[in-house]
Amino acid sequence: MDGMIYVVGIGPGKKEGMTLEAEEILEKCDIIVGYKTYVDLIKDSFPDKEFYANGMTMEIERCKKCIDFAREGKNVAFIGSGDSGVYGMASPMLEEAAKVGFNNIKIIPGVTAALSGGAVLGAPVGHDFCLISLSDRLTPWEKIESRLKFAAQGDFVIVIYNPASHGRKDHLKKACDILLEILPENTCCGIVRNIGREGEEKEIMSLKELRDRPVDMFTTVFVGNSQTKNINDHMVTLRGYKQ
Amino acid sequence: MDGMIYVVGIGPGKKEGMTLEAEEILEKCDIIVGYKTYVDLIKDSFPDKEFYANGMTMEIERCKKCIDFAREGKNVAFIGSGDSGVYGMASPMLEEAAKVGFNNIKIIPGVTAALSGGAVLGAPVGHDFCLISLSDRLTPWEKIESRLKFAAQGDFVIVIYNPASHGRKDHLKKACDILLEILPENTCCGIVRNIGREGEEKEIMSLKELRDRPVDMFTTVFVGNSQTKNINDHMVTLRGYKQ
Repeated sequence: MDGMIYVVGIGPGKKEGMTLEAEEILEKCDIIVGYKTYVDLIKDSFPDKEFYANGMTMEIERCKKCIDFAREGKNVAFIGSGDSGVYGMASPMLEEAAKVGFNNIKIIPGVTAALSGGAVLGAPVGHDFCLISLSDRLTPWEKIESRLKFAAQGDFVIVIYNPASHGRKDHLKKACDILLEILPENTCCGIVRNIGREGEEKEIMSLKELRDRPVDMFTTVFVGNSQTKNINDHMVTLRGYKQ
Repeated sequence: MDGMIYVVGIGPGKKEGMTLEAEEILEKCDIIVGYKTYVDLIKDSFPDKEFYANGMTMEIERCKKCIDFAREGKNVAFIGSGDSGVYGMASPMLEEAAKVGFNNIKIIPGVTAALSGGAVLGAPVGHDFCLISLSDRLTPWEKIESRLKFAAQGDFVIVIYNPASHGRKDHLKKACDILLEILPENTCCGIVRNIGREGEEKEIMSLKELRDRPVDMFTTVFVGNSQTKNINDHMVTLRGYKQ
């Protein structure tokens, strides 16, 4: 009989950031599959498990491996950091499974960086917000630019994922230049690095300062809306406009 | 000595949806404070605790109570459903605390309905998305309308919180009419009701059908983008545009 595939978001990093449901699945499954970096994050917490890990850009192969393992009768925990859905493996896994008529899949949510990083900064995502990835690996840059413009025009708090990559280090600067056409220079912004991991760091700054701030791929960026303030060294978006 | 205030997102409802960190705080704290409905959700899981609960629209009083309890030396877990930040109590708590110079606050994130409801539907938030609340208690309706328009123009997946309230039952219909000016009638949409609780239900439908669908305040609504499809009865947003 086929096993189950659980696509599990493990949260920011340490075991304490995962849900009780995620932990139970990882305890009970037969094999844990994932991108090498994420597997390394939790390997020590599950010492007796079988693991299958491979590298970046091997996502589709990983999905196919999960189906192979499940067809052998194994219960598979297919892990990723943050949430399983948000820029995660739930979408390609469901696509691949549908292609071959495999149905035993359950998606287990997790805490994505907009929430875990938000908690480190205070409450930047206290009201309506957008999530935008600056990675142009699968999305044309023009689409990303257009989303930044509409998000700024809509006065959304904007959470930026993948603000830099090995290939293009100036993505965040370009994004800030687009936002600065619409938003004031003193818009309250924040960055968090290594959320929930060793070396966690945070900083609150203006949009103008953010533009010239070097960031890496372990950083999540928060751009406030018109109601976002630095309150006592916390980045806080007020819950509404009628206070 | 003052106690700590932990603002804790407990996830969608059942204990298994909270993080290990949230559970540990609830186990160790001296008192759990929250809106009555949320306290009732977890009361049975923490039978030996002291609780303080009150009703809707009593948010600021609840924040002040937390500070009072902490000033008495108690460690306080101030709970809310979903995430502590997203339309949650982290923002007003940090504001109230700053007013009286109280600094012992830590924000603990949780799984918000965009993620937990998304997991029930499949992977609707697999790529860039916006979160918009239709509650006009603290936000002018014109602001909400403008955000819906910009989100649709930006081709964002849109997750709608508070699609209905006692006072105004036609919010979702009005929102869909705005979206239908920009998005095709057959845009893939989904709704989830009672996420992670007794009586959980989901349904995938077109935007045209969503317009005439009665919903209540326990429902979260997902409006797909141009890359969202119904794949094998799952709502799935493809990860990019270059596949």
